[in-house]
Amino acid sequence: MPRALSQLIESFRLLPGIGPKTAQKLAFSTLKMSSEQVKDISNSLANIKSEIIYCQYCQNISENSICNICTDNNRDNSIICVVEEVMDVYVLEKSGAFKGKFHVLHGSISPANGIGPDEIRIKELVNRVQSDSLIKEIVIATNLNLEGEATAMYINQIFSKSENKLKITRLARGLPSGSDIEYADETTILHAMGSRVNIDESL
Amino acid sequence: MPRALSQLIESFRLLPGIGPKTAQKLAFSTLKMSSEQVKDISNSLANIKSEIIYCQYCQNISENSICNICTDNNRDNSIICVVEEVMDVYVLEKSGAFKGKFHVLHGSISPANGIGPDEIRIKELVNRVQSDSLIKEIVIATNLNLEGEATAMYINQIFSKSENKLKITRLARGLPSGSDIEYADETTILHAMGSRVNIDESL
Repeated sequence: MPRALSQLIESFRLLPGIGPKTAQKLAFSTLKMSSEQVKDISNSLANIKSEIIYCQYCQNISENSICNICTDNNRDNSIICVVEEVMDVYVLEKSGAFKGKFHVLHGSISPANGIGPDEIRIKELVNRVQSDSLIKEIVIATNLNLEGEATAMYINQIFSKSENKLKITRLARGLPSGSDIEYADETTILHAMGSRVNIDESL
Repeated sequence: MPRALSQLIESFRLLPGIGPKTAQKLAFSTLKMSSEQVKDISNSLANIKSEIIYCQYCQNISENSICNICTDNNRDNSIICVVEEVMDVYVLEKSGAFKGKFHVLHGSISPANGIGPDEIRIKELVNRVQSDSLIKEIVIATNLNLEGEATAMYINQIFSKSENKLKITRLARGLPSGSDIEYADETTILHAMGSRVNIDESL
């Protein structure tokens, strides 16, 4: 196999979720693409790291030092939604369910992987809350796994100790839309039952 | 979303089998990779089109004008295996089942997609066979779909008309290794039954 091809296969394997078979398939497929198309992908990759910076307030990716969400005056400055990853911001924005500001942690606390509170952007959140008296509520929207739960608890602990009278909330747990009760796991059922609401209050 | 990121998502979508969700996931993941890793992928892509040429004999990808398989004197020059794509060569090589030479068509005849015999490298095969008297057999290893079958029939027709006394064969059809008869389709059963062999002759 030509060196350029095996090198491209190795390169594709650096991407998450791309195994040896897929990497091979993708690499071979570039041979059938036009030079312009392959150049487009190469250039986009070359630019991604240099053109993207992080918003100094919310740590979301941005083209400027303050991102579009933080500069948007139509959004509620009193409530901050804390998420693990940049992509979570886009998912929440797409839902249209939240009109406050965000804070991106860029990870979650994971002792098993050697990631403590200092490795993610919690101190930026603490500094922001301390210097911005408009903030009244923090909605924790970390993932519902071990790391996400540990991160949520850690953040809750920090702010419940502080003198700011902040409301700390988190996303409701329960059955996902369109789901089959038959296939729901026990923990989900437990939460759905424990947090049940009057049927005329449900959406 | 920053322009560089949306551009990268669009770029990833150029790759086959990469839908909008996967493209988004891959693009976001590059933000978490090191600059060196992203640069590696970008560079590999930048090189792939310029560094790869096609073997003048077998049309396989190569770093030189004649590929490693064609220059290998330990291989059988009397038999050529005709495949649709470059990747097929690597799959067959990996099996170790074939020690002759190859010919890569770079596609298959597909009237529905406007691809006729002239769009794929059949004339290169004809020229090669005409100028090389060592060739005694052509094994057709095109895919077992409509396009592959049409291509196989077309090639068979060309060489059965010519004066060269060439043997034209194709890969055996039947049940794949490790398969369940319960799940085999009718055509496969038909071929497996029709081409059945004495049990002491089977591998």
